[in-house]
Amino acid sequence: MPGRPKIAITMGDPAGVGPELCLRLLADPGVREACVPIVYGDFDVLNRVGQKLHLALPKNDIGLDVWPELADDIKDPAILDFAHLDAAAVQPGHVDVAGGSASFLYVDAALSDARRGRVAGICTAPIQKEAWAAAGVPFAGHTDFLAQTCGVSRHGMMLTSDVITCTVVTTHVGLRDVPDLLTSEKIVDAIELTAETMQKLRGHKPRLVVLGLNPHAGEGGLFGAGEEESIIIPAIETALQRGITVEGPVPPDTAFLKSRRETTDAYVCMYHDQGLIPLKALAFDSAVNLTLGLPVVRTSPDHGTAYDRAWQGTADPSSFRAAVLLAARLAM
Amino acid sequence: MPGRPKIAITMGDPAGVGPELCLRLLADPGVREACVPIVYGDFDVLNRVGQKLHLALPKNDIGLDVWPELADDIKDPAILDFAHLDAAAVQPGHVDVAGGSASFLYVDAALSDARRGRVAGICTAPIQKEAWAAAGVPFAGHTDFLAQTCGVSRHGMMLTSDVITCTVVTTHVGLRDVPDLLTSEKIVDAIELTAETMQKLRGHKPRLVVLGLNPHAGEGGLFGAGEEESIIIPAIETALQRGITVEGPVPPDTAFLKSRRETTDAYVCMYHDQGLIPLKALAFDSAVNLTLGLPVVRTSPDHGTAYDRAWQGTADPSSFRAAVLLAARLAM
Repeated sequence: MPGRPKIAITMGDPAGVGPELCLRLLADPGVREACVPIVYGDFDVLNRVGQKLHLALPKNDIGLDVWPELADDIKDPAILDFAHLDAAAVQPGHVDVAGGSASFLYVDAALSDARRGRVAGICTAPIQKEAWAAAGVPFAGHTDFLAQTCGVSRHGMMLTSDVITCTVVTTHVGLRDVPDLLTSEKIVDAIELTAETMQKLRGHKPRLVVLGLNPHAGEGGLFGAGEEESIIIPAIETALQRGITVEGPVPPDTAFLKSRRETTDAYVCMYHDQGLIPLKALAFDSAVNLTLGLPVVRTSPDHGTAYDRAWQGTADPSSFRAAVLLAARLAM
Repeated sequence: MPGRPKIAITMGDPAGVGPELCLRLLADPGVREACVPIVYGDFDVLNRVGQKLHLALPKNDIGLDVWPELADDIKDPAILDFAHLDAAAVQPGHVDVAGGSASFLYVDAALSDARRGRVAGICTAPIQKEAWAAAGVPFAGHTDFLAQTCGVSRHGMMLTSDVITCTVVTTHVGLRDVPDLLTSEKIVDAIELTAETMQKLRGHKPRLVVLGLNPHAGEGGLFGAGEEESIIIPAIETALQRGITVEGPVPPDTAFLKSRRETTDAYVCMYHDQGLIPLKALAFDSAVNLTLGLPVVRTSPDHGTAYDRAWQGTADPSSFRAAVLLAARLAM
């Protein structure tokens, strides 16, 4: 299997489902065929979870000190051991400062390695936002950290699956803040980033649909403050002028009918739940979160730390597995 | 088939798919078995559409003048003929003043007949809001008209199907207006009306889910202005005190996962698209719109006039058919 890309898989919050899922992916034949998975985490935590759940650990346990010289020659699944945590002290399902700092160290190193070309892409297990805050990490989450550290202003959050793909123009903000955060420029950015990525993923010129903000897309200005006319339509016109195949603004409630889904490669949605409600209703097991606009490949599963299921052997690896496979594909 | 309820089926906007769908329902064996369908419309328009599309008309063509004395004895599908329109002048797919006034007359008479007990329920074909406005009808749509005329302040819009049922607390308003329109009282009303109706429909005590307003249901006040804590949670607590089985506020994007849908009889959603996006994505063909809180039974299909398909013989009667059957069931 020559030429398989090395993918950094960060272990995420140690008290969540990340450690279990990482062990499952390291042993997964499909993952091992598609890439060389390197888990950025703590060996002792993975070992404790592995013993509890009877999951095997890979032979390769690499210390941070020897990693820089070994990186180029790694051909097998490995754990990159940050040795940051006292494994015995980790309590599954509990927010912890050390867990916050550890999960930040993993992704910080993964980004650094990806930018240097030591790995071809990053797939991140979920972190716990409160744990980052408690540890004094000055970023709201993965995407904020990655975008700010890479210095990109034009980035986006896409969730993709075989049945439905959505990019959201605004993300983790209150519903009341959405209308005033929308600008034509941001919508054009989201359309362009979506078109570029879908072209790469699908191998053909993608057909995009842009949603309205209001019920019935405002019904000619009847509902809302005319955001469709003043903000969304100008963005669509700009995208059309740039040669992108896009239509809209489409009434949100009929945008996701089966007949339309079948002729749409991706939807550009105005807010978090407008895209994530239909995506998770239709494709929860298989959807992958993809950060658009970064200079490195970054994917993640579409679920959180799932503290209520941590370390129990019942976590479903489907979405995380799909995320690693997508990172491997995009990294080629 | 004794005791079948008489259901008033209003023809809706004559330039839309209403006339075709009414003819299909009048001839539908399942509809005729469940109820005595009476189409409130214009015979000449139905006849013109029937001839164009080779659809049969029922033998019963009843004039408004003889209707009051005949009403009690009707046992077969019939057309109640308002003779309001010049059928030759109706242009399918075009907004028209006469179409607006006609479609208002049908529903006005249907409501009056339902309140007098002449019919057991109403199922309304879609109207065109611009046509009502052009005709000077002082109501934004069916639901406004019905609620105001019946003098009810506590009413709601539910869309129901076998796979998913959603009530929406706010309906046809701009997204930016939603947060300030939400009150605990309105949410309690929506929960109670939903619980009553689902008890009737499902024959068991329903399990309800109330959604959050913001992404991740606000994540502890992180996104939004704390609407979950200040408005939604108090409403849920009131409903619990009144003995309703309800949980929430649930993060909107995970509320509609398959696993949760299977244990939820109905969702109480904060805004139009929060409920209608997943409903139409999952159950567009079969969903029925049901107005809660009225003293009469009223259902309608989950689609609009579909001007682009009017009078072409391609309209899908599934949702309208389900709406008539549901009205018949609720009217028993």
